[in-house]
This record gives sequence, structure tokens and C-alpha cells, in this order.
Amino acid sequence: MAYKAPLGDMQFVLQHWLRAEQDWQALPAYAEVDLELAMQVLEEAARFTGEVLAPLNGPGDRQGCRFSDGEVHTPEGFAVAYRAYVDGGWPALACDPQLDGQGLPQVLDAALQEMLYASNHAWAMYTGIAHGAYLCLKTHASAALQQRYLPGIISGETLPTMCLTEPQAGSDIGLLRSRAEPLADGSYSVSGNKLFISGGEHDLTRDILHLVLARLPDAPQGSRGLSLLLVPKWLENGERNAVYCDGLEHKLGIRGSATCALRFEQAKGWLVGEAHGGLAAMFVMMNSARLHVGLQGLGHAEAAWQSARDYALERRQMRAPRRPEQVPAAAADPIHLHPAMRRILLELRVRSEGMRALGYWAAHWLDIASESADPAQRAKAGQLVALLTPIVKASFTEQGFSLASKALQVFGGYGYTGEFPIEQTLRDSRIAMIYEGSNEIQANDLLLRKVLGDGGEAFGVLLGELRAEVAVGQASRVVFADALGEVCERLENLLPEVRALSIEDSEYPYRAAGDFLQLCATSLLAFAWARSARCVAGLAEDDPLRREKLESAGFCFDYLLPDFDRQLAGVRAARLPLPFVAGE
Amino acid sequence: MAYKAPLGDMQFVLQHWLRAEQDWQALPAYAEVDLELAMQVLEEAARFTGEVLAPLNGPGDRQGCRFSDGEVHTPEGFAVAYRAYVDGGWPALACDPQLDGQGLPQVLDAALQEMLYASNHAWAMYTGIAHGAYLCLKTHASAALQQRYLPGIISGETLPTMCLTEPQAGSDIGLLRSRAEPLADGSYSVSGNKLFISGGEHDLTRDILHLVLARLPDAPQGSRGLSLLLVPKWLENGERNAVYCDGLEHKLGIRGSATCALRFEQAKGWLVGEAHGGLAAMFVMMNSARLHVGLQGLGHAEAAWQSARDYALERRQMRAPRRPEQVPAAAADPIHLHPAMRRILLELRVRSEGMRALGYWAAHWLDIASESADPAQRAKAGQLVALLTPIVKASFTEQGFSLASKALQVFGGYGYTGEFPIEQTLRDSRIAMIYEGSNEIQANDLLLRKVLGDGGEAFGVLLGELRAEVAVGQASRVVFADALGEVCERLENLLPEVRALSIEDSEYPYRAAGDFLQLCATSLLAFAWARSARCVAGLAEDDPLRREKLESAGFCFDYLLPDFDRQLAGVRAARLPLPFVAGE
Repeated sequence: MAYKAPLGDMQFVLQHWLRAEQDWQALPAYAEVDLELAMQVLEEAARFTGEVLAPLNGPGDRQGCRFSDGEVHTPEGFAVAYRAYVDGGWPALACDPQLDGQGLPQVLDAALQEMLYASNHAWAMYTGIAHGAYLCLKTHASAALQQRYLPGIISGETLPTMCLTEPQAGSDIGLLRSRAEPLADGSYSVSGNKLFISGGEHDLTRDILHLVLARLPDAPQGSRGLSLLLVPKWLENGERNAVYCDGLEHKLGIRGSATCALRFEQAKGWLVGEAHGGLAAMFVMMNSARLHVGLQGLGHAEAAWQSARDYALERRQMRAPRRPEQVPAAAADPIHLHPAMRRILLELRVRSEGMRALGYWAAHWLDIASESADPAQRAKAGQLVALLTPIVKASFTEQGFSLASKALQVFGGYGYTGEFPIEQTLRDSRIAMIYEGSNEIQANDLLLRKVLGDGGEAFGVLLGELRAEVAVGQASRVVFADALGEVCERLENLLPEVRALSIEDSEYPYRAAGDFLQLCATSLLAFAWARSARCVAGLAEDDPLRREKLESAGFCFDYLLPDFDRQLAGVRAARLPLPFVAGE
Repeated sequence: MAYKAPLGDMQFVLQHWLRAEQDWQALPAYAEVDLELAMQVLEEAARFTGEVLAPLNGPGDRQGCRFSDGEVHTPEGFAVAYRAYVDGGWPALACDPQLDGQGLPQVLDAALQEMLYASNHAWAMYTGIAHGAYLCLKTHASAALQQRYLPGIISGETLPTMCLTEPQAGSDIGLLRSRAEPLADGSYSVSGNKLFISGGEHDLTRDILHLVLARLPDAPQGSRGLSLLLVPKWLENGERNAVYCDGLEHKLGIRGSATCALRFEQAKGWLVGEAHGGLAAMFVMMNSARLHVGLQGLGHAEAAWQSARDYALERRQMRAPRRPEQVPAAAADPIHLHPAMRRILLELRVRSEGMRALGYWAAHWLDIASESADPAQRAKAGQLVALLTPIVKASFTEQGFSLASKALQVFGGYGYTGEFPIEQTLRDSRIAMIYEGSNEIQANDLLLRKVLGDGGEAFGVLLGELRAEVAVGQASRVVFADALGEVCERLENLLPEVRALSIEDSEYPYRAAGDFLQLCATSLLAFAWARSARCVAGLAEDDPLRREKLESAGFCFDYLLPDFDRQLAGVRAARLPLPFVAGE
């Protein structure tokens, strides 16, 4: 698979769309980070992902992981690539410099993650949870545990896992049954069966640190009775801990990622955070993980766009009804000139670039939330991150998959074969809609907790950001500012309606949640492109970046924004009864 | 895979929705067919597909086809199942009784096809083209060719292929290069390379009849220079003809179907139809094939619905915000009670049943078009079939895939594994959007040829059918009739607008075609459910069929019809410029 990180667009987002440098200078932790340094880091990441990971993507899928005698062998080249990743210092990118981290902003980590997932989703699954585990341990683990285990995570010498799902407990973690019994030395004996554990066993690192949700003997029922335990594969005394891999799942995609069934048999572990406080500790990890899963969607969309574009530029079929003047006449035109293909290709470009701006925006707010000296700004940033996380997770992953399918269409029959990487992108991308809280869970989280939960306050903050863009855009006479203003007004009018309906009928928000999330996603896409258009408005008339961004913004507002009406109608339709589906 | 043909709903469509018996009695060819006979046939088909084909679906996918030394070995059990299919007389179902066919209506063949594709798409690929080839030879081949080859196709002793695609010529058959040179004995010497030939080689029958598009020496350039040749694998003298399989494609899905690269090396063949008239001869086959491909989408939707429903009735996660009175309280409810799952499940049911009504309707018009004694009715039926074919092909296949993805979501992580059949349904269903004319080609065919091509006449006939339903529904006080009336009015107003825009800007209809097709599909879905609601309106209040159909109709109009606005906006947005996407 050929993958070339879109460094130009990444720079556009950092430099113009986010104006990140200005913000970094105002944040003590990043005062010394500038755009030049940022781009140097991303160029290195582009080299690593393009030259090392992308070439392993197809072969890793075909080979898959091999399981024998409790051991997992990752595809050829995966371990060597991981060594290069560690040697490059990538695990430490956004970690605390006092702990030997590089102390770079999370927004750069977001760009790194996009590249990892775009070039090789399966490989990136092994490292995917590391930053979340770092945050979780740093926030909740005892000093002793931190001292023992954080350095390995930061250097990459060890890799963590998140052990949540059990056969009977997927979305509903209240049904978890794994047990942890306290031992005399302050540690715990952990037992239970965990399912769908990514990187539960592998040959990339010697040790693996399992973060396990389990119940203490005196635990209350349900999700409030869960505790988080750290269970290493190897104990300090050199003994193998009693955690065993019983097998691998055979999956639709990400076949190079080892998805393990794990068995804990009185394995030794240590409590992370409070007893029965596992959920809070886990959530630190999950929010970071959810943003990363959203970036998987962006990565897949970008990969799909690149491969469809390259193919469409080469493949010739039929004459196009119209062609640019400079294109010579031929028996058949390159298919990127055909209107149906242009619609697909533009949608791929416009959604990928729009997601990039929004995804990095969310990560940038994460930086502000944790590093701003101003408590009010930290609070605001925290509200925005909480609100944006489920939208990014659900809508990006949905787009990653649907755009992969649209891109596949560009290849015709060839797209259905293993000759091109697009069918793998389609398969790989599908999982992201399910794990880390299914997209349906995200929608409920957004509407019930994040929007209605605080009486609409955080939502008002988000609308304030959009309105600010409308104002700046109108002042700069950006043609899309008025349309974005209308979006804001309609969203603002919708909220009291949704609140009233939710009070009348407590099931209503559950019925409306899916469309509500999509509605927010469409609004944010319009916001992203209104701002992009505004950012290039000042460039020279003949600057190609200006032309391309304005064309993309036009496509977004003309061809994609009509989704808004459909989704708004969906939110309203949800007031109507939704029958139960009984069996036969 | 467990598959149970939805005989109850099939009967509902035949008996109430189509009132097929009345029409059959008016058609001389089917005067003796009644509902009882029809249902007996479908019950047999249900047994065959449920007991013989469905159990081979998963194993056939895992095993795939094997290629060695030019020979193709289909998955275990496929050949035995094919023998049972032939012994059951299924290939002859809708063939002419004077040629030993069973002379049953094509609408019953449509139901059979739905079952074949729902239970085992890969297996059904081998038989998929047979009826189209039968029609093609019956209409265009010489008496001698018919005599030699039709009996084998009708009995199933031989299987045909359609050899169209070449590496450089997919959607654009004008670029085909295969050659046919006349020989002294009236036959032809056929040479060229064909790609993506389904069933190009296999072990189900001894002989295989290839229908090959090629150019005669004096052929004009482009698609008007194509001739159709019949090239058997075995010659009458017992010699092997010079057609060779060079290998199989490795595909995303339908892995039990042999997708072959074929090489014709001065193979002996015979002209079917006129020299340079290959396209006309092929089109007889393609229209039938396109309707069948649409039925694949229906089959996948039905399979997805059945498996998601069954899983959702068993799997328990979390408490639902509301539950029916008769459901006992539990720590976790079956997930079919959760609103997000209900939306998915209802959409699966409502779209599957809606497609069934519409797909059988199209096939029923096919019967009227070929068998009515009244020339005016034949002409009208022909117009409707021509118009409905691209809509059915594109929109059903699109729905088959997107519904498979929605159903997969019901399974959570399990859906992503090989443990359940839904991931295979997702993979298998994707091809149908591509082959037999990609969905983009269908959209152009619909808007440019079928709707604008005759000045809107055929489209007016279709609208007349919808309007007639509005009138009957209003007379019976069916609540959905008014909403359908509004749909008709908006479509009627749209057409002059589309025509005017197409005259102003000849590229416009190409930009609008995709949304226009979807708009028609949504309108037809509303039509299907308005009629279904009207059909059950007279049943007893407590009849479960009445309750379920009315609930489904309500869901269609409340939750799905808002798509109409989006698609209408898309058709209108297409007046705006659509930039070219250049390379980097």
C-alpha cells in the first residue's frame, strides 16, 4: 500500500486553521514548541509511516497473527517495525518531560495517530492504548506503581492492554464477573475471562501490562462495583503471571492485530485508584482512546481518498460529458473527469480534510484543558472535549467506513479484489464503529449526558465557538459565514424542543440520539469548511491552496450540507412512536 | 447459517399486494397458475434453500474455490447441491413449456432468486445468468443453435457465462478488443482475454457455454462494433474447445464463486444474432440479470434482518428505558428493546419487505410485458420494467450492503468475527453494487435514457401507478395515502425543472443522476408501504399481520421518508458547479 502522509494539509490545519503556535506560546508546557519543530516531528512520522508501516499493511493482513501453545506470533516485520517505533521515541511524544517524555502537544500526537492508522491500522492497534494507559496510571496509580510501570510505557519497552469485555458483558460493563481477591501483601488475586482484548498477547515486547476491570469481594452490583487492576504478564521476580491467551478471534479486518481471549487464573495484580472506583480510572483511558478511534476513521478516509484518487487519475473509461480545456481528447477519459466519480472523489477529499481540522481541534482543546494557566479556559476546554469526543468517535468512524465503500466504487470490479488495498480499508475500518463504545453508545452519551445532562450549557459553549466563526467570517465577507449562521440558529432553536420532548417522554432522547449526533457532525463539518474558507480568503487569487480550499468549501455547503435537513427531520421524527420488534 | 425463507411475506405480496392470481388468469400463458400452486412451488424452494444451500454458505466461504492446472474445484457440497437443483427442475421454472420448461411466471422466479441469494450468494452465482442466457438465445440465436444448446440450459445440464469485461474495458465496453474471425464452415474463431467471468470454469456441469462479446474483422469502432458469440467449452465432436481459465480472483466476498480470467485462443464459436448486433443481443440478458442483481440486495437484506433479529432477541445488555408490559424485569433486557436497536431492526424489516413488494412488482410487469394479449398493456409494462430495472438494481444493492452493515452493528464485537454469518453477508453484498453495470451506470441509465430519453413519458406512467394508489388509498381512508400524494406532486413538479436544467447544461443530469435514482427509490418505498397498509386495512383489528404492517408503514413514513428531502435537495444542488479533482 502506498501511503503518503498529507503533511501539507496537516500544516494548513496547525498553522492557519488552529493557529496552534499562538496558543502553544500561551501554554507554559508548550511555550517552546513552534510550527517548525511541529512540522519536523510530523515529517519524521510521515517517513516512518510511509516507509516502514505502510509496506507491512497488506502482507500483515494476508498473513494475520498465528497462535500456538498460548503464544501469539505477529505478522512478519511487525516486531522490527515496533523496535524502530520505540527507537524513534514515538511512545514518549506527548508524555511528561519530567518522566522522560518529549512533552509535545497532544495535537501532534493526534497527527501521529492519524498517520499510524492510515498506514497500518492492525499494527497501530498494539500501540493504540498506550497513551491512554499512561494517562490512567499517571492520574490514578500509586506512586510505587507509577515508578515501576510508567517508564516502560513511556519508552515503549512494555505495551499495555485494556481488559474490559467479557463474553456476557460488552456494552453493559455492569455485567462483568471477573474477581479480584485481596492478598496479604496488598496485591490482589485476579480471576476471570476477558474477550476481544487487542494485543492481549504478542511478540512485540517482553512484558505486557493488563489493565483489568474486576470486582472486589465486597463490591456492589453493577458498574459501580468495578475496580481497576494492573496485572503484568511477568512478575518482578521473573515468574510468569497467571494470565493466559486461549486463542485469537478470526476477524473481518485488522487481521494483523491479535484480538485475544484472555484467562486470568489467580493472577497477581495491583489496584489502580480507589476500590470500586475502576470506572473513573478507566474513563481517563477511554476518553483518550475514543478520540484515537475517531482518528482511525480519519486515517481510513485519508487512505481511501489517496488510493481512489490515484486510481481515478490513471484509469480510463468512456468519454466524460465535459473536460477541462487542457485535457487532450482521447477514446476514453481518465475516470476522475466523470461527474459521478468527481462527486465521490470530492466527498472523500472534503470529508477527510474536514475531519482532520475537527479532530485536531478536539486534540488541541485537550491540550488547553490540561495545560492552560486560566481555570476558566481549562473548564471551557474540558466541556468542549467532553462534547466533541463522542461526536468525533462516532461520526469519524462512520465516515471512515462509508468513505472506504465509496472509494471502493471508484475501482469497479478491481476494488473487490485483493489487487488493490481498498477492500482491506473497508474491512479494517468497520471495527471502529463498534469498539470503544459502539456508535449507538456514543450517541446516547452525547445527547443524554453531555447535552441534556448539564441543561445545555456545554452545548451552548460549542455553539458559541461556531457563532464566533460566523462573526469573523462575516467580517471577512466569507460567503459561507451566513449559511453557518443559519445552521447555528437552527441548532439553537432545536435544543429547547429536544429538552421539552425529553421531559415529556423519557424514551425520546434515546430514539433521537443517533440523528442528533449526525446533525452535530454535519454542523461541525460546515464549521470546519467555513473556517477553512476564511483562512485562505486572504491568499493571492491564483494560489492553488486558496482555489482548492474554496472549491472544497463550496462542495461542502452545496452538496453535503443538505444532510442537515435529513438529520434534523430525523431528530423530530423521533417524537413518533417506535414499535417493538417481537419475535415470530 | 440459518435461513428460513419468508414464505408468509412472499404470500402477502403475491396475494394481497400484487393480487397476482387475477392478473395470471388474464394472461393466456399463466391462466392455469393459481396462488396455491405458486405457494407450493415456493415452499419447495424454501426447503431447498433452507436445508441444502444455507448450510453450505459459511463453509463455502471459508473453503473458497481451488484452482489447479486450469481446473476449478468449487467448495465441498456445491456440486451435489447443484445436482439436487437440476433434479428439482429449478432451472426450467420460468421457461417455455414448449421447450420442456415449466412455464411459471417470472415473479415466482424472482422469489426463487431471492431465496437462492439470501441463502448462498456464492453458489447462486453459478446459476445466476442461466435465465438471461435462455432469453438471449431464445430471442436472438439461430434455430440450429437453439436446438443444440437451449435444452441443456433449460434442464441445467449446462451452465452459461456472460463474457464481457476485459482488463481495459469494464464500464466502457466500447474498449473491448476480443476478436472473432469467420471460418469457412460458418463458425468463428474467437480470441481474447476476459476478466471477472463468474463461473468461467467450474466442476458443476461438464459443458459451459460462454456468451462472448467480440469484434468481427470489419467491425466499426466502439460499442456498435460488438458481436455476440456462443463458445462452448466442449465441441460436438468431443474435443475440448480452446478456452482456458488462467486463474481466479481473490475477492472480498462470494468466495465460493469462481471469478475467472479466461483466455480464448482461436476458440470455435457461433454468432448469436446479427453481426455487430452483440449489444442488442446482450441487453436481453443484461436486463434480466440486472433485476436479479437487485434481488441479491433483497436477499442480503432479508438474511441480515433474520440474523440480527434472532441475535437481538437472545442477547441481553443493560436495561431498556421502556419495555412492553409482558416482559419481566431483569438485570439486563434483550437488546431488541433498546431504542437504537429497534430503529435498526425496524429499518431492516421495513426495507426488506418493501423491496420484496417492489422487486416482485417489477418481475410481475415483466410477465405482463411478455404475456399480455393487449398490446397497449404490453407497451406500458415494458416502459415500467425499463424504468424500474436500474432503480431496483442500484437501490436494492445499496440497501443490501448498508443494511448488512447496520445489522452487523446489532452484534457488537461478535459481528466482526467469523462466529456469526453477518460479516460474510457484508462482504458478499458489496459486489452487487459494482457488477452488471455499476450503480453509477444505473443512475445515468435511469435519468438520461429512461426518464429524459423519452421526454418523461415512461416516468409519467410510473407516476400514474403511484397516483392510482393514492386514489384507492384515499378512498379506503388509509392514513398514508395523502403523504404519498405529496410525494407524487413533488416528483411531478421536479421533472420539468430537471429537464430545463439538462437543456441548459448537458452535464447537469450526470451530476444529478445518483440522487435522482435514490429519490425514486425512496418514493417507491413509500408507495410500497402505502399499498401494504391499504391491503391490510380491511383485516380484523387484532390480526397480527394488520398490526405489523401498519407499524411498518408508520415507520417508513415517519422515520425513512425524510430521506426524500435530502435526495431532492441533492438533485437540486447538482445545478451548482462540481469542480474537477486534479492530481497533486
